Amino acid sequence: MVSYSELGREELLNLKSKLEEQFSEVKAKGLKLDMSRGKPSASQLDLAMGMMDVLNSKSDLKCQEGVDCRNYGVLDGIQEAKQLLADMMEVPKDNIVIFGNSSLNVMYDTIARSMTHGVMGSTPWCKLDKVKFLCPVPGYDRHFAITEHFGIEMINIPMTENGPDMDLVEKLVSEDKAIKGIWCVPKYSNPQGITYSDETVHRFAKLKPAAEDFRIYWDNAYGIHHLYEDKQDYLIEILMECKKEGNPNMVYKFCSTSKVSFPGSGVSAIAASDANLVAIRKQMTIQTIGHDKLNQLRHARFYKDIHGMVEHMKLHADILRPKFETVLSVLEKELGGLGIGSWLVPRGGYFISFDAMEGCAKAIVSKAKEAGVIMTPAGATFPYGKDPKDSNIRIAPSYPTPDELKIAAEIFVLSVKLVSIDKLLEEKK
Amino acid sequence: MVSYSELGREELLNLKSKLEEQFSEVKAKGLKLDMSRGKPSASQLDLAMGMMDVLNSKSDLKCQEGVDCRNYGVLDGIQEAKQLLADMMEVPKDNIVIFGNSSLNVMYDTIARSMTHGVMGSTPWCKLDKVKFLCPVPGYDRHFAITEHFGIEMINIPMTENGPDMDLVEKLVSEDKAIKGIWCVPKYSNPQGITYSDETVHRFAKLKPAAEDFRIYWDNAYGIHHLYEDKQDYLIEILMECKKEGNPNMVYKFCSTSKVSFPGSGVSAIAASDANLVAIRKQMTIQTIGHDKLNQLRHARFYKDIHGMVEHMKLHADILRPKFETVLSVLEKELGGLGIGSWLVPRGGYFISFDAMEGCAKAIVSKAKEAGVIMTPAGATFPYGKDPKDSNIRIAPSYPTPDELKIAAEIFVLSVKLVSIDKLLEEKK
Repeated sequence: MVSYSELGREELLNLKSKLEEQFSEVKAKGLKLDMSRGKPSASQLDLAMGMMDVLNSKSDLKCQEGVDCRNYGVLDGIQEAKQLLADMMEVPKDNIVIFGNSSLNVMYDTIARSMTHGVMGSTPWCKLDKVKFLCPVPGYDRHFAITEHFGIEMINIPMTENGPDMDLVEKLVSEDKAIKGIWCVPKYSNPQGITYSDETVHRFAKLKPAAEDFRIYWDNAYGIHHLYEDKQDYLIEILMECKKEGNPNMVYKFCSTSKVSFPGSGVSAIAASDANLVAIRKQMTIQTIGHDKLNQLRHARFYKDIHGMVEHMKLHADILRPKFETVLSVLEKELGGLGIGSWLVPRGGYFISFDAMEGCAKAIVSKAKEAGVIMTPAGATFPYGKDPKDSNIRIAPSYPTPDELKIAAEIFVLSVKLVSIDKLLEEKK
Repeated sequence: MVSYSELGREELLNLKSKLEEQFSEVKAKGLKLDMSRGKPSASQLDLAMGMMDVLNSKSDLKCQEGVDCRNYGVLDGIQEAKQLLADMMEVPKDNIVIFGNSSLNVMYDTIARSMTHGVMGSTPWCKLDKVKFLCPVPGYDRHFAITEHFGIEMINIPMTENGPDMDLVEKLVSEDKAIKGIWCVPKYSNPQGITYSDETVHRFAKLKPAAEDFRIYWDNAYGIHHLYEDKQDYLIEILMECKKEGNPNMVYKFCSTSKVSFPGSGVSAIAASDANLVAIRKQMTIQTIGHDKLNQLRHARFYKDIHGMVEHMKLHADILRPKFETVLSVLEKELGGLGIGSWLVPRGGYFISFDAMEGCAKAIVSKAKEAGVIMTPAGATFPYGKDPKDSNIRIAPSYPTPDELKIAAEIFVLSVKLVSIDKLLEEKK
């Protein structure tokens, strides 16, 4: 392959006219394809249908501790659900609290509580002039939406292949008391699929924040969401690591079964130190009498234990893997060596992250839309929706069928090529 | 019956020694009975067991609008759940938003949102020097716990048999901009079982609050929780009433199916004006991708429609009615005419409210505990747990069996008599 940048004006114009022809053809088909959100496909949801039968009107609905799960009681989760989620999170059972159906909601509540009540006795953030968060970019739009909603200033931290730029994180966190947190998706990150290296996790655990109420918001959304049995990423468990470094309270860890059982009908949890959990339960006891124990019981009895869940995730992987490979092979075949885009090959998670030439992402997303392919809006992976380089595009291959995906990926690369040629022609003017 | 206050010192002492003998006997039995919380009994929960079968692995899990309830999507509730809860709340379907398993959580979130973001664009309450709430007393302890948690000053409003003292409410609300809300349980109130009269509701709808962000927090927890088919209380629907009076945005209405289906595994909702709901959804979209749609579907398919729910509530009533009657008949038989306590006879809800002689409530609760009967702590029905008269005691007859309840009620009246005699003897010194 010859890099596009080495082509002359004439060659680019010829290429463009051929590609435009292809684009017109595919556009004429009037397709409707969606690669915008990390939604499991129907066949993945079918995997958990047994969960709809695990409790019925003949079931004993008492949990291990003897409580009738149909009634009030048990603020922070039934024992068997705690065990399951604790194993999923690789932490002791006593260091987790079970919540409702959404870990996003838990993160929101965590920030909301810090705004009104501070963190373990610190000044409520709403009483401070300025609160800042570090945001590794590209990252998860809904994290950024929460911090923006509360008027928290967001500071971009570039991602490397080993995780966030830790030189920058260490510097900022140790200097600025206004920095109260950092959003992390440490394994199979959204959107790049990067897993933080051992060194990165060690450096996180050793942080010396200026703010006593600084916390690492460790959203381990894809902790068990591997694509390959034989090629898995490993992530050091952060709670223990922080404890060993004398920073036991510095981290909140979040997870849910949204992409394990049913999105919207799963179980979520937070893991943290005893002292953090005391503060969390103190608020929780005002906010609710307890979350849905029947759904906790349903999950615990369906998966039985973490081994059952791990086996279940292999079935998800069997469905997701070919989809990722479809997109990646189209990218490689059509864009490899052209110098107009780069991407990583994730081993898990829900996304592929594509970096176009600077200033091209919005135009590419808009071009793909012309031909009926919906992508995550360009910029969405950055705080305030502003990608300073207008370069990053998140590809979500989970929801469409493999056939749809192949067509969608082809439209995408066509869009990348066309927009990149325009950009190069512009430069050559 | 001769009123205790008419008895002489000698007579009281004689009576006391007889009652103490009875008390010793019952105490010796080492009973453990709980009349403290409004928990449905197991037989009530059995009524909804069919709900465990209504969805199974063969079910079509698409809701009316064609969305797969197993996946992400539908922020504010599926149509059939909206219809059911809207009918339960007597409001149009478009004026409600469905939440998770707990209306308490919705109320908490409503206050939390007002603290950090204000109400429909008003100044966030956390930026104000002082925020106050009116609290009809006796009332629901968990309401007061929320306002206390957020540092909101609570002002007691005496309850009358028609609802809160509206003269006082009107005066305070129109004079003081710091007053941002009032907690109401308008039907079969907690703990008195009072239903607000037509005039009370009309006066609420006509309020002219000094604060633009004043809201009535209308917790219609017992809207369909009648004890009698032929003796029901009627409550005017407040949303429509406020709209008619030109105050469409002045009320938030809350409800849940906690005491209809399963506490902790039900569905909750808020009803409010369009403008209020716009503000609520704006936050909600940051907080969550959506609540548990499978549980919404489960409820909608189990009850089918509001008629199904009304019929279901009759079965609850059949279980609860004899329990209320047991307690009320012991109260009437043992305390009627003695002048040492008063109570109302509720037609619905979950509680009986008992007013002891001033300064006796704590001692009565403590006395009953000696003999193994757990009551709601005295004072719990007042803000900050402080009953200025130390008089009110909440009786929750739903959870024990009728036999247990009879014994518990007898221990309770014995405790009332003994503590009251001590009080009278003290006065006669």
